[in-house]
Formats: sequence, C-alpha cells, structure tokens
Amino acid sequence: MRAAVARRGQMVVEDIGDPVPASGEALVAVRACGICGSDLHTLRHAHSMLALASMTGAEDAFDPDADYVMGHEFCGEVLELGPDTDGLPLRPGELVVSMPMAFTPTGLELLGFSNRYPGAFAERMQLTAAMCLPVPNGLDARTASLTEPVAVAVHAVNKSAMQPGEGALVLGAGPIGLALIAVLKARGVAPIVAADFSPRRRDLAAAMGATSVVDPAVETAMDGWVQAAGGATPVVFEAIGIPGILDDICRSVPSQTRVTVVGVCMENDSFLPLVAIAKELQFQFVIYYDPSEFADTLRMLAEGEIDATPLLTGSVGIDGIPAAFETLGRPETHAKIVVEPGAGAAITPI
Amino acid sequence: MRAAVARRGQMVVEDIGDPVPASGEALVAVRACGICGSDLHTLRHAHSMLALASMTGAEDAFDPDADYVMGHEFCGEVLELGPDTDGLPLRPGELVVSMPMAFTPTGLELLGFSNRYPGAFAERMQLTAAMCLPVPNGLDARTASLTEPVAVAVHAVNKSAMQPGEGALVLGAGPIGLALIAVLKARGVAPIVAADFSPRRRDLAAAMGATSVVDPAVETAMDGWVQAAGGATPVVFEAIGIPGILDDICRSVPSQTRVTVVGVCMENDSFLPLVAIAKELQFQFVIYYDPSEFADTLRMLAEGEIDATPLLTGSVGIDGIPAAFETLGRPETHAKIVVEPGAGAAITPI
Repeated sequence: MRAAVARRGQMVVEDIGDPVPASGEALVAVRACGICGSDLHTLRHAHSMLALASMTGAEDAFDPDADYVMGHEFCGEVLELGPDTDGLPLRPGELVVSMPMAFTPTGLELLGFSNRYPGAFAERMQLTAAMCLPVPNGLDARTASLTEPVAVAVHAVNKSAMQPGEGALVLGAGPIGLALIAVLKARGVAPIVAADFSPRRRDLAAAMGATSVVDPAVETAMDGWVQAAGGATPVVFEAIGIPGILDDICRSVPSQTRVTVVGVCMENDSFLPLVAIAKELQFQFVIYYDPSEFADTLRMLAEGEIDATPLLTGSVGIDGIPAAFETLGRPETHAKIVVEPGAGAAITPI
Repeated sequence: MRAAVARRGQMVVEDIGDPVPASGEALVAVRACGICGSDLHTLRHAHSMLALASMTGAEDAFDPDADYVMGHEFCGEVLELGPDTDGLPLRPGELVVSMPMAFTPTGLELLGFSNRYPGAFAERMQLTAAMCLPVPNGLDARTASLTEPVAVAVHAVNKSAMQPGEGALVLGAGPIGLALIAVLKARGVAPIVAADFSPRRRDLAAAMGATSVVDPAVETAMDGWVQAAGGATPVVFEAIGIPGILDDICRSVPSQTRVTVVGVCMENDSFLPLVAIAKELQFQFVIYYDPSEFADTLRMLAEGEIDATPLLTGSVGIDGIPAAFETLGRPETHAKIVVEPGAGAAITPI
C-alpha cells in the first residue's frame, strides 16, 4: 500500500507491505488523518524527544532510526475484521475513530509513533477492534478525524476546572489553541480572548469563537484581556510551548491566576518561582485525554455541540504529505491539513 | 525602648524612640515574637529580594539601607489605646495578635519590613487596633505568636484542596514544613511522610505528627513515600525553596501529582516542562493567608486543635537576637526561637 514513511528525518512516499488484521483487530481504510504539530516535531527531533520521554518514565518507545509511519488523528472505514472480533459492534463499510493505541501480544503500540504498526499516513491500518468507536450521526470522516486533537482541548478545559462566569485567555492560536477556543465556546465561556502574532491565525481564532483577538506585536495579551474583561482574573491556556513563556505569564498575569499548560515545550525552561509564589499562581500541566473524554468529543462533534471545522484549512493525498509538512512550518498558510488518501498530491484549500 | 535594629545587613541592639499610638492604633508590649527564616534572608539579601518583589507588583517597599526593626510573628499585651479606638473590644492588659500590617494615613506598612513602624523585635509596637484579635481561652503568648507561621501552613493546606483519603509528602522540615505537618495532622491526613537531611528536624517532624520520616541521604523522599503509602499518589508540599527542587519533584513524583509550593525560592529556577506535561502535574504556588485563615488559626491553636508547640525550641531576650540569628543558620540546633523581651541574652531551650 501507499504510505508516507518517516526515514531518518525525511518523509518518503513509497509502497510498503499491506497490513493484515491479527486477532482482535480491524483492518480499516484511512479516510482522513490530520497532520499534527507533534508529527512535524517528531520528524526533526525524535532523538531529543525520546531522551526527554525516558525521563517521564515512558516505555515502549520506538526507534526513530528505523522506518515508521506517522498519523494519529484518523478516521477510517472498516474493511475487514480479523479473528476474535465476534460480538463487537463493527461492520465493514462503517466509519470509525480510535484513540491512537493498539494493544498487541507484545505490548502497547502508539499508533503514529511505532515501528511495528503503521499510523494513518497510509492507505490502510490495523486497529484494535475493541478500541474503535463507530462515527455516529452521519458525521463525515474529515470532521471525525478532529476527534483526537479536539479531545486534547476537551481534556485541558476539564482539567482547568473553569467555574461559571470565568473567562479564558488563550495564548497561541495554532491547532491546539484553536481547538481550545472551539471547546470553550461550546461550554459557553465568555469572554474568550486569543493572542497570536499571525493575522491568519487571529482570523481563524475569531472564526472558532474567540470574542476578541490580540496581536502581541501591538499590545500584550494581558492588555487585550483587560480591554475585553476589565478587572476579572482570566483562566489562562498556554498553547505556545516555547521556553520563556511561563516566565512571561508569571510576570504578566494577576494574582490568583490559574494557568493550564497545553503547549508542549521540549526544552529546558526557567522562571522566577518568587513571582509565582507572590501571586499564588497555579500551573496545571496537561496532555492527552482519557477514553471517556475521547468518546465524548466524538459525540459532541457529531451532534454539532462543538464546531471545530474552521481548523481544517487544507486537504492532501498521501503523495502530497512531504510538501504539506513543509507548508505547515509557516503559520500564515494553513492551520491543519488533513490527509485524505484518495486526494491528489497538491494541497487543496478547504 | 530596647530594640534589635537591622542596619545595613547587621543586627544591632540599641535604644530607639518609644512608639506613640496614633489615631486608631493600640500600643502593645511585645510578649513573644518568633524569628522567621524570611528575617534571616532579608537581613542578608534585602536588595535582591526587593528587586524581585518589584516584579510581582509589590509596592510600599521599604528602604533596606535605612534602619528597620524586624519581627512579624508576634503576640503583644495591650498597654494603651490611641485616639479613635472607642468601641473596639480591646482592653489594656489583654493579649492580642494581628496580621503584620498597619494601615496608616500614608499607606500600608508591613510590620517587620517597614522603616516607619518598628516590628516586634522590640519592647513595644504600634498596631492598627481594628486588626488586633484578642487571644482567647487563656492561650499563652508564646503559642499565640505561632499564629502567623501556622496560618501560612493552614492557607497552604487549604489551597492544596486535599481530599479525604489523600496522604501528604512534606519536603523539608524547617519551621514551615513542621507547621504544615501540625496542620495536616489536625486535619486527620494520613500518612504524613516528611523528608529532611537533618536528624534533629526529622525528630521534630515526628513530634509534630509525621507518620514516617525520610533521610534523603539514605533514600529518596518518593521511596519513603512508597514504603509508607504503597502505590497511592501523594499530595506534595514543597517547603525547601531552593533552585532545582521543582525539577527534582517533576522527575520523581507519579503522574497526576499535585504539588503545593510553600518554599520561597528567591533565585531563578529551571525545569523540563515536558516532564510536568507528560505527568500532568499541578503546581500551586502559595504565600501568606487571608484574614479569616489567620483568625481561624488563632482559634485552632487556642482550642488545642493544632499543636504546633514542638516547633518552639528556644527563647531569647532582645539582647540575644543577633546571636539567635547566627544560631538559626544551623538546622541541627533550633527550629524556631521566640523572642521574649523579658528574657535574658542567652538562648534558653524550650
């Protein structure tokens, strides 16, 4: 089958072996899979990421010097069910999504970051059938593929423990910042102030539901917040993930601010604890989601409670994945490009 | 009156002018005032502290190049009430405590860190009468002087939002760590595991109510926790306040751990956000207390709900304050020395 293979820091499109569903597995045809910022980062910095991951106690890491196929924000159509899948409510022809992990006889494989199980930048993939959630309500595959990134945002908002009447300040309007805005809007949060240097991303933030946007080159995010919300204390969502941003937050936010850190900073960072102490700030670091949040996100997307579709700005076929990776390095052009294996090699605007 | 004056980094005992109660003020005779770690730090590092404090938006800072009298953990006996204090429930002869702040016509003065209003390392002091809380239940002045540091611990435990069934890991058994243990014990928290390199402080931690103590030179704090609590996730209280400790916590604690940071690190600190992110850690930075927590702490001390008396290890008169500051630099000798103006110049063990 056709696949985009990550090989020593390069994306190479070629034919690889066809996956065969093992016991308890479903074979699906990939219908849509978003390209995630962590895909771009992994391609270039897999070794340092794995070194850091080992400090977190992460096991089952993959070997970035061997081939792997990325793609973990997927929606697929069931082609075939392997042995020992009787009784599962899956039928060929049905669209499904799944958390990107496969339970195999030799352990857990993180789909998209595995040398053994190809991710969704390919025509087909094996999934653990019991992990598959049928896509309800006639939701299209493109939108269903947003379940994974939007679940990250749903989880972050849940962990932020926002109270009625609180507003949000979202720092960074990349894909995760934009997904946060969609979830906050669905929760009825107001105001939602979003800050990003990119005019394109500020426009997208407004389209997603930000009540006002800030260009940090013109005024600080906190100044923009104060204009929108007066003296209220924001609940801050950090969706930038670069060194220095936490220190900047400490210095600029008011006393008693709660900060949910969603941006994944891969480097060492430094700050002045005294400032955080004197203001009694709270930092809640978050990542991923739990299975119930993932399922709930799919339901909210399918029932139209969350509208995250402005996030999707382009579509591309498998042959266009290397070019899409290049394009996504520039924030002015695209937010999220979705890989649709049937599409052509050129990126089509959505 | 006799006072210990902080003068350009030195403690000098000498006679200074007698305080005169202004409108709305009470004149009290200091009966007991604990020496706090922040007193020691301020004496040596006032300039860098003030530079940091200005980043937090702190105003009304004092001038460390001019004389000031420290002492903010005090209990005094009302000597005289100034003008405009009618109707306040204060009588001469009564013991009172107060949050260490005076409201004056020219602004707020932080008692113990003010060039205008002497703190309690002196025979007498002016207090804002409306801020004075009569000491109930016949509580002695020594114990009542613990209201301020124990209120810091009460506030930290409140902000930690501990749930029934959760246990605590207290890192550092200095005065604040010990006060935390007393408060956690009063709340019925178990287990309470305390870690400190000092055998003396580990003994005090056990006397305060720690269910087990750890010598980090022998085993890590987390290993000690696991021995006491098995696989449960601790609520961590950081009461050390040195650079590197937050990174150390990130690497050693389990996923989903909540950390309440009480230790005041005055320097820049660095850590790996990715580790905090991957484990979804929460850091709640805290300082001080609110007026209701201060009043509640006094009540709990007076009613015996909190027993913080093991914290007091020595008593000294005003003339002995410079020597007491020296002694407190060595953790093996004393936890908290209380200044009792009537006592002699030699430190008496309690």
